[in-house]
Amino acid sequence: MSPTRQDCIARDVADPLAPHRNAFALPDGVIYLDGNSLGPLPRATPARLREVVEREWGDGLIRSWNTAGWIDAPRRVGAKIARLIGARPNEVICADSTSINLFKALAAALTLQAVRPQVSTNERRVILSERGNFPTDLYVAQGLADLLGRRHELKLVEFDDVAEAIDERVAVLLLTHVNYRTGAMHDMAALTQRAHGAGAFAIWDLAHSAGAVPVDLNAAGADFAVGCGYKYLNGGPGAPAFAFVAERHLAALAKARFAQPLAGWIGHRAPFDFDADYAPARGIDRFAVGTPSILALAALDCGVDTVLAAGTDALRAKSVALTELFIALAEERCAELGLALVTPRDAQRRGSQVSFAHENAWPVMQASIARGVIGDFRAPDILRFGFAPLYVRFVDVWDAVEALRDVLATRAWDRPEFKQRRAVT
Amino acid sequence: MSPTRQDCIARDVADPLAPHRNAFALPDGVIYLDGNSLGPLPRATPARLREVVEREWGDGLIRSWNTAGWIDAPRRVGAKIARLIGARPNEVICADSTSINLFKALAAALTLQAVRPQVSTNERRVILSERGNFPTDLYVAQGLADLLGRRHELKLVEFDDVAEAIDERVAVLLLTHVNYRTGAMHDMAALTQRAHGAGAFAIWDLAHSAGAVPVDLNAAGADFAVGCGYKYLNGGPGAPAFAFVAERHLAALAKARFAQPLAGWIGHRAPFDFDADYAPARGIDRFAVGTPSILALAALDCGVDTVLAAGTDALRAKSVALTELFIALAEERCAELGLALVTPRDAQRRGSQVSFAHENAWPVMQASIARGVIGDFRAPDILRFGFAPLYVRFVDVWDAVEALRDVLATRAWDRPEFKQRRAVT
Repeated sequence: MSPTRQDCIARDVADPLAPHRNAFALPDGVIYLDGNSLGPLPRATPARLREVVEREWGDGLIRSWNTAGWIDAPRRVGAKIARLIGARPNEVICADSTSINLFKALAAALTLQAVRPQVSTNERRVILSERGNFPTDLYVAQGLADLLGRRHELKLVEFDDVAEAIDERVAVLLLTHVNYRTGAMHDMAALTQRAHGAGAFAIWDLAHSAGAVPVDLNAAGADFAVGCGYKYLNGGPGAPAFAFVAERHLAALAKARFAQPLAGWIGHRAPFDFDADYAPARGIDRFAVGTPSILALAALDCGVDTVLAAGTDALRAKSVALTELFIALAEERCAELGLALVTPRDAQRRGSQVSFAHENAWPVMQASIARGVIGDFRAPDILRFGFAPLYVRFVDVWDAVEALRDVLATRAWDRPEFKQRRAVT
Repeated sequence: MSPTRQDCIARDVADPLAPHRNAFALPDGVIYLDGNSLGPLPRATPARLREVVEREWGDGLIRSWNTAGWIDAPRRVGAKIARLIGARPNEVICADSTSINLFKALAAALTLQAVRPQVSTNERRVILSERGNFPTDLYVAQGLADLLGRRHELKLVEFDDVAEAIDERVAVLLLTHVNYRTGAMHDMAALTQRAHGAGAFAIWDLAHSAGAVPVDLNAAGADFAVGCGYKYLNGGPGAPAFAFVAERHLAALAKARFAQPLAGWIGHRAPFDFDADYAPARGIDRFAVGTPSILALAALDCGVDTVLAAGTDALRAKSVALTELFIALAEERCAELGLALVTPRDAQRRGSQVSFAHENAWPVMQASIARGVIGDFRAPDILRFGFAPLYVRFVDVWDAVEALRDVLATRAWDRPEFKQRRAVT
C-alpha cells in the first residue's frame, strides 16, 4: 500500500536527522527542493558574518590577516571539506570558482602527463569527458586546449560509454561525479581504476556530490577533484569552490617545479617576500591564486559545518529514502500526466536529486514555484528536484508531489505569466 | 614656519571631505594608514550584508538570482567603478581576483596581437613590465608565457626606463599605475601613447590607483586594465577585483570569436541554455568565469559608494595635501633618525602613499602599530603609509609622525616582540 501523508509525518518523527532542519533559516510556506542549486541559509551564518565584518574587519582591520587567522582560511575550510570527500586535510584548498579550479587541475594533470618518462605524450592527446557534462567543465577544457595550441582533443561520449572510451590515447578523464541534469552518478572507483590502467589521470567534479553522497577520493585513487561551495555545502550564493590534489601529485608537481598556470602571489611559497620570481608553495597552497574573499569563506565555513554535523552516511541513507519516496509518489499520483523519469531508478546509480522530463517543464516549474514548491528547470525539458536530507522532510516530499499533481492535472501552468523566461532559469 | 598640531586641526575643520570620515566604522585609538592594503569597514556595509544574507539569500533563496538582481551584480558594481576610472559602464566587470583578471587581459591582448593583419607577430614577442612591479603581475605573465610554450619573453626594466624600452618587439606593455612599494606613479597617457606608437597594447593594473588618484582610462587610450576591490575601494578582505576592456577591443574580440581562456559558464552568451559549445558573451561579460560571490559583491558595492560620494578630484586634492604634510613633518621631526624618502617628492609623480626606507623597518613598523599607528612593512626595508583622504585627517598625519619620531628616537622598536615575523607582513 502506498504511503499516506500521515505515514510521511511519522517518518519525520522517527528521522534521526530531523533536528538538523533547525540549523537552517527556511522561510515559511516554502518547500525547498533546490539546495542543489543554492543551499539555504544556515542559522549560524549571519552571526558569524557579523563577527567577521564588524569585529575582525571593522576593529581588527589589516591585523586580522594574522590575528583572526584569515591567511589560513582557505586551508582551514579546505581541511573541513576534506572530511566529506575522503581526502587528507592537506589535499584540499578553498579558492576561486569551480571553473577556475578545473582549469588549474587540468593544466596540472596535462603537465604531469608531459613529464612522465615512460609514456609517449605524442600519442596521449585526448581529454575524455561526457557529452552531458556540466557545460562549464567542457568550456574550460576547450579553452585550455585552445590556449595550448590545440594539441589536445576534447572527446565527448555518452554517460554509459565512458568506460569503453578509456584507452591509451587518453591523457585525462574529466567527469562530473553526479550529472546536473539527470542525477546519474558515475562509479568513481571503477572509472578511476580504468583510467589509471590506461595511463590516464582522473579529475572529478564533485559539484553535485560533495555534501550529498559519500565520496572517498583517496579510496578511489582520484588524482584531482574540484567542487562547489554553494550547493549541498550551503556556503551562500557564489561561495568559493574547492580543489583537491592527491598528495602523491603534490610531491610530483613540486619535483617538476610546476606552478599551475594561474601563478598568483597567494600560491607563492613566501608571498610576503615579494620576490620577482615565482616559487610555488610546496603543498596544496600552490593552487591558490589571488587574495581570498574572507567574507565568502566565513559563510562557507558555516555551511560546511552543517554537513559535518550530520555525517555523510546518515545523509545518504535519508537521501535515498527521500528520492525513492518522491519517485514512487510522483509516478503513482501523477500517472498519465506526462512525467517521464530521467534519473536512474536504481538508488545506487543516482545522486540526491530526481529529474522528470515534461514537455511543458518551464511553465510547470514556474507554477510549482508560485505554490512555494521550489525546484529547478533545466533546458530543454527537465523538472529537477533536489533532496538535501539536512532539511527536506518526508512530508515535504508528499506535499511537493501533491502540488505537482495539482499543477499538472488542472493545467495550472497554462498561464501567460508562467511562460515568460527570466535571466536565470 | 612648520605647521603645529593646532594648524592640522584647523585644516580638518576646513576640510570639505571631513564629513566622509563618518561613513566608516574606525576603531578608537587607531590611526589607520593602511587603507592601501585593506580599506576600513564602511558603516553601510553590515546592514547591507544583513539584507543580502537574511532577506535575499535566507528568504529569497534561489529566486534572488532574478528577483534581487544577483545575476547583474558583476556588471552593476563594475559600472560604478567605471565612473572612478574614466571608463564606460559597459567596459568594466567585477570578477575573480586581480591576478586572474590579469591572466584574462593578457591572454586577450596577445590574441588581438596575433590576429592583427598588419603586424608580424613573429617579431613581437615581448611582454614589457617593470622589475619592481607587484610580483603577482610578473608571476601571472610568466605563468601564461610558460603555458603558451615560451614563445613570449617577459622583459623587465627599471621604473624610469620603461618608455625607452618600448619598441617594435613589444606585444604588450604591462604596468601597475602606482607602484606598491615606492608609491611612484607612471604617466599612463604618455606611456600608452608610446606603446600604441610602437604597435603594442597597454594593460594597466590600477590596484593602488582606483579610488585614490584620478584615472581616465579612455582619455589615455588604455586597452585593458585590472584593479583591486579591497584597497582604496573599501570592499572588504579579498573583495572581488575588476577588469576593464576598451569597447573597441570588445568588438574586435567578438569578431575574432575570442573566448578568453578561462571559459566559464557565466561568460557564456546564454549560460542557462547549457549549450555544450562555448559561445562567449558579446560584451564585457565574456570576462566573467564562474558564479560570482554575491556576499563579496554586496560589500564591494558599499565600498565603491564611499568613494563615489566624495569624487576623485576632491580626493586627489586632499591626498596631495596629506602626503605633502607627512613628508614635510617626517623629514623635519625625524631628521637624523635614519629615514630615507623613497616616494617621489613631486606630488604629480606619486599616488596616495608615502614610503620611507629604514634599516630597521620591520620592528619600527611593529612598534608603531603597537601604538595604534597602522602602516605597512614591505620587504626588505620599507615603511609604507597610505593616506586615504576619505577618512585620514590632517591631525592623524601629525600624530603619526609624532609616534614615529618617538619610536625612532627612543629606540622603542628594539624589543624582541617587535622582531618576530608573522605570516602576513
